[in-house]
Order: sequence, then structure tokens, then C-alpha cells
Amino acid sequence: MKENKKKAVDTTVPASLAHLKMDRRKMLKGVAALGLVLVQEPLDAVTQKAESIHPLAVDPSKVLGVPPGTLGTRSVFEKPAKLPSFTSARTPLQDLYGTITPADLHFERDHAGVPRIDPTKHELFFHGLVEKPMAFTLQDLKRFPSFTRTCFIECSGNFRTGKTTLTPQEICGLTSQSEWTGVMLSTLFREIGVKNKATWFVAEGGDAALMTRSIPVEKAFDDAMVVYAQNGEAIRPEQGYPMRLLLPGWEGNTQIKWLRRIELTDQPYMTREETSKYTENVAEGKIRQFSFVMDARSIITFPSYPSQLAKGWIEIRGIAWSGRGKIQNVEVSVDEGKSWQDAMLQEPVLSKAHTTFRYLWHWNGKPTLIMSRAIDETGYRQPSYRELVAARESRGGYHFNPITVWEVKGNGEVFLVNDR
Amino acid sequence: MKENKKKAVDTTVPASLAHLKMDRRKMLKGVAALGLVLVQEPLDAVTQKAESIHPLAVDPSKVLGVPPGTLGTRSVFEKPAKLPSFTSARTPLQDLYGTITPADLHFERDHAGVPRIDPTKHELFFHGLVEKPMAFTLQDLKRFPSFTRTCFIECSGNFRTGKTTLTPQEICGLTSQSEWTGVMLSTLFREIGVKNKATWFVAEGGDAALMTRSIPVEKAFDDAMVVYAQNGEAIRPEQGYPMRLLLPGWEGNTQIKWLRRIELTDQPYMTREETSKYTENVAEGKIRQFSFVMDARSIITFPSYPSQLAKGWIEIRGIAWSGRGKIQNVEVSVDEGKSWQDAMLQEPVLSKAHTTFRYLWHWNGKPTLIMSRAIDETGYRQPSYRELVAARESRGGYHFNPITVWEVKGNGEVFLVNDR
Repeated sequence: MKENKKKAVDTTVPASLAHLKMDRRKMLKGVAALGLVLVQEPLDAVTQKAESIHPLAVDPSKVLGVPPGTLGTRSVFEKPAKLPSFTSARTPLQDLYGTITPADLHFERDHAGVPRIDPTKHELFFHGLVEKPMAFTLQDLKRFPSFTRTCFIECSGNFRTGKTTLTPQEICGLTSQSEWTGVMLSTLFREIGVKNKATWFVAEGGDAALMTRSIPVEKAFDDAMVVYAQNGEAIRPEQGYPMRLLLPGWEGNTQIKWLRRIELTDQPYMTREETSKYTENVAEGKIRQFSFVMDARSIITFPSYPSQLAKGWIEIRGIAWSGRGKIQNVEVSVDEGKSWQDAMLQEPVLSKAHTTFRYLWHWNGKPTLIMSRAIDETGYRQPSYRELVAARESRGGYHFNPITVWEVKGNGEVFLVNDR
Repeated sequence: MKENKKKAVDTTVPASLAHLKMDRRKMLKGVAALGLVLVQEPLDAVTQKAESIHPLAVDPSKVLGVPPGTLGTRSVFEKPAKLPSFTSARTPLQDLYGTITPADLHFERDHAGVPRIDPTKHELFFHGLVEKPMAFTLQDLKRFPSFTRTCFIECSGNFRTGKTTLTPQEICGLTSQSEWTGVMLSTLFREIGVKNKATWFVAEGGDAALMTRSIPVEKAFDDAMVVYAQNGEAIRPEQGYPMRLLLPGWEGNTQIKWLRRIELTDQPYMTREETSKYTENVAEGKIRQFSFVMDARSIITFPSYPSQLAKGWIEIRGIAWSGRGKIQNVEVSVDEGKSWQDAMLQEPVLSKAHTTFRYLWHWNGKPTLIMSRAIDETGYRQPSYRELVAARESRGGYHFNPITVWEVKGNGEVFLVNDR
């Protein structure tokens, strides 16, 4: 690694630092002169004015910066973006760090766009097999005991293939992670008095698609929540403002956004979204329905297409997650799958949460294939693409979580490998 | 609690839900008609057009929503904001949920504003008592082994008093929390070869204040980092883009933003920021210097000024943190400090991190005082204001972390209590 890191410089202080004291005096005069007039101006105006006044404006330490404001902004040199289609927008996994997805980069999958909901006019209505049908406003929900947990949400259709020039964002950018705050659904079920013969509940969204899914009651008494906050603030409209259903580890489509109605029933509704959609082929021409849990998965986000590598030490980085619990281990292969080594997992490893992994690799410059596979605490191991195709008798579909294989060419270019 | 939660409604499906099937058909026609022309239009245009076409536009489930985009946005009904002054901006603690502070609401304390730094022109230069003086660009840093941790940063001047109408944001909004990613400083120190006689290092920022602080080398080999990412994305300009020093648990002023230079020395520099500033009175007229660690503290963020309470069950909520390690316990008193009960801490409880606490209180409508005190894993207990005044022979200053006391009046109004 050292070879790549080192950058020899002479031991004298560089020119830009040579006259700190004199420059500091100059700068302070500059500050005094500029201070009052600049307070309310945007960054570019500040810089332009400073540059017009100050000969050393190319050095940001020689000009007054932007004063504090009510909201921070991104650097003008950073432009992360989701990849939108007509019905979804994918998180730029290859551009992110750590485990939290910034709220405005959280993936989005809508069936009729994002509604604008006035929280003072929105109610969550409980009815059906209950003792006391009730409706709760956002303010009502905030008076119940609150709970906070960090977990991922993934669309069960989170898979793309067929080209060697796909990025992690394109391959599986329909997974994101937030710290969610809200009320345990079990708390609300006790409040309304769920009847014993209620075995399912139907959740309905307030968007123009009236997205509706049937959920077994057991999940409500396990870890389901109605959440109103995300990453410290009110939940974003694209994620269900003012409230959404959170079903940790289950497919995103079931975690109804803009939640407005929950009906307790003794059977599933058999809606379009659980019959013609969100089902998948399994062996012998059968179709699997109500496949709620997201299987363990991982992907190397660096290096990935379109990385350009140089010989030497490279930190292979990626994320792994499982809807069944904690990630127990991530194995990395840098020799086309012949041998596998354990990657380092970043603590804390949380249940049903994105977990970042790292593996230090010394690349000798020879062409190879690199890949990662996740193992969760139930012992489930992420399968290869070929294993999945054999099991599903299909080359894709929902809940398709194959190992992602990257080809590293001799010239350092990296491409996706399909069908392996 | 139930009394306050219940809202009786009859068991028939409310009018707004009575004709779902018919309305869904109507809506789908609407979607088909509106879809193509609406794709690229902003939310307000979509809604106005839809309202002009659709008679039921008052119900967001009857109009096509906004299609997916490259960046999400806040709801137009939510307007969280920092409270800016000329040199700082405070986090709205009373408006937040969970433990993560959204990056654009992270508190800010600048000494010459926020510089605009082009990362391709920025270097972090190491020199002084080292084997190999070296400079690293942002890209260089990203090739080192990475590390991620969640911790708070707090300004050591984080205290206000003197009025009963202060909010948590005004009292101690100079603390925020992020998930930080970067390189362990110890990794960089090994790379440059820190000499044995180096006992301190001096960190300098690239802003117009050239903020400079002296730090004992031990901290570098404990848990100090140079971070380039915050809450999943590039660090924000207000927090030091493209890189800042992270000293978990230490006063914010030492965690140099826009970090451009680290000099290894055998003594502190005795800069302005560690002599005339960032020192505090202790007993017998002495002044305490280099008081780096932030003591354990907590504050009830709900109820707080200007909450308006109703009789019945109330979930008291707040945050607690300590620069010495994990929060071990938060004790809450609802009877003016006569008795104290343990609050519930939200897992996971992380070291040197904001920890949320909750305590379910049934308010009988009588006037009282409520307060919280934090105890950390070292056994340190947050003091009262009067205890601090006695110990410091001062009524404020740096590292002033008193218990915050809220007065609940008979009419449900809540005010800050000073001098107690």
C-alpha cells in the first residue's frame, strides 16, 4: 500500500503556508472590510466579491467564507444523484459511505407518483376485526410511546443484468437504509383491540395507486412499526410522508407508504400486488406467493464498473444485508471463486441492516474476477446467479439476489460479469 | 394514555373510502390522461393541473403524484431550520427524532465563515517531527483503509441561560450527531513515521481564521480520525469539506474543519484558541486549560418551552451523551428533584454518542418541575446548575453542562427554570 500512498515532498513549509502571519493580518483586515456587507449573500456572490477585492482569492484561506445559515448545503463539487425512471429512482450505492442513506438519495418506487399530503388532513384508520375502530392523526401517533431502529428497505425487484457496463446503482440501487422513528404497530393493535380471529391485516396507501397489501398479523406483534421520522427528521414524501408502514427485512412493496388504512381480516385480500405482481417462479413451474422476507445479499461497490484500478493495495468495499437478521460473515474471492476469505465487518452489525465490509487486496496487475457472498445469522448463504437460475427456472424476477461478479482487466478496467 | 388516544368513529367505512373501486377506475383513467404530460412538472404544477381536471383533487389519492427524480425533497409542510447568528447556527433539537442529525441541520460554529474548497486543489500536509513529511489529497485519503463510526460533536461553549423562554435549540443546540467515515489518524501517523519525541500535534484549518489547535499525540493513537464523509455522503462544507479532524468526545473546536496541515511537535503551540479562548474558571480563581473531554449531559427535548401539555399520559423524551464513553443511565425527576426514576435508553447505546431516552409520565395537572440527569460508564453524574456555579466560581463559560429544569404550569405551559 505504501508505494501507492507516498508522495515525497521537501520538508520546507510549502509556499501557500510560508507567510501565515502576514497573510493572517491581511485576511483579518479583509474580514473586517467584507464582514457586514457579505452576511446575507450566497457563496458564489461572496467568492466573486472577495476575488474582486482580494488578490489571493484563489486560496480559500485568504477570503471570508459564507456565514452560518438556517440550512446547510452540499459542496458545489459534489453532485450525488438518484437514477430515475418513470416509476423508480435508484440510490447511487457506489458513491455512498457508511450505512446511512441520505434521505434525498433514498431509493424510490412509486406506482402513481408521490402525493402531496397535508398532515393535518391525513388520518390512519383502523377497522375490520377490531374491538374499537379508530382513526389517528400524525399528532395522535406522536403521543404514543416511540421507538427508533435502523434498517434497510429493499424493493423485491432489485436486480438488473444483461450488460457488462452496469454500475452498483443500476444493478441493485433499489435498497437504502435509514434510522426510522415511530410507533410499534403492536402498540396500536393493543389500543384498538385486535380480535383473536384476525390472522391478516390489509394496509392501504393514500397515493393514487391506493397501493394495498395483505400482511400476516404475526409480523405486527414481531417488529412492524408505523414510522413518521427518517434520519432524524420528518419522513420524506418519497418515503411516505406523513407516515408509512415499516416491516423490517420484508420486501419494500409491503411497507405501504402514505399509510391511511389498516383493516384486520381473517384472510389475505389477494390484491393485484400479491397475485399478478410480486410473486416469482420456483422449480417445476410453480409460482411462489407472499414471499415477504428479503434474502441475504452483498455487492462490492468498489472496485466496480467504471472503476479504473492501478496495481498495488486496493481496499475492496461493499455492503451486505439480510432480511432474516444480522450478517454473520461476508466472504470475498479475488481469484475467480477458487478461494474465499473473510472480509472485515464494520461494527455495530445491526439486525436487518446494511453492513459495510472491507477486504484489503494487493492486486498484481493480472486479469481476474472478484466477488463477495453474504452469510446471515441463520446460516443462509447468498447463491450464485447460476444456482438461482436453476432453482427458479428463470433468469430473473423478484427476490433475485445473486453474487455480483466483477471482471478486473489487465489494464485496470472493471466490468460486470453476467450469467456466472 | 388511552383516554388521550381514543377517537371514537362509527364502524362503517368513512365516505372518503366508500367507493374505492369506482374511484380507482376513475383515477386510473386520470393517470393515463395526465401521465405523459405531467412527468417533468414540479409538484405544484402537477397538483394545480390535476385540480383543474379532477373534481376530487382535495383528496391526494385522486390525483397523479410527482414522478421520481434525481433528489428527494422535504415535505412543503415541514420546515426544520438551524438558528443562525453571525458565527454559529444551532441544531433544532426539539424538532428531531432518533440520534442522527440531518447533515443540513448539523450545528455550525465558524470563525471566518465557510470556505469554498476545490478538493482537487486541497492537500493535507504532515510535517514537523516525522520521518517522511507528506501531503495527501482527498483521493489519497480514500485509498487508505476506511473506518466508520457514529458520534456526537459538541461546541464547548454549548450553554445559554437567563430567560425562561429558551428552547432546547437555544439552550444547547451546539451539539449534533453524524455517522462519520474516513481514515484513522493512527494509520496516517504510521505512514509518515511519527518520531518518538513527538508528544503533541498541531492541526490547522484552511478557512480564513486558520483555526489552529494543539492535540496530545495519545489521542491520535486512540480514536482520532480524518473524516471525509458524513451520514453516507461527502462531508458538508459547514462541517469541513473536503476533510476534518474527528476527535470523538472532545470539544468541537479542536476537531479542525477544512483540515490542511498537521505538524508534529514536542509541545503545544499555545494558540489564541487554547489560551485566551476555550479555557474556563475553576475553584480558587484558577483557569483550566486543554480541557478537551466533553462531560456527560442530557436534556429533555419534550416537553420543553414552548410545549403546551394536556393532563394524562406524556412520553418525556430527550437525548443524553458523554465524551468519556457510553451513557450508562439517565434519571428523570417529575417531582422537582425529590425522587428520580430510570428512563428507558434506546438501543444501540454507542460510545461518545447521542443516546435517546424516554420516560412515560402521567401528569395529574398540578404544577411541577421536571428534569433529567445523565450518568456515563465512568460513573460521572451530570451536575446541577448550582453545583457547577459553586465548582467554577462562575455562572457559565466553557464546559458548562448543568441539568436543565423545566417548569410545568397548571395550565400546561412549559418554561425553562434558571439558577437551580
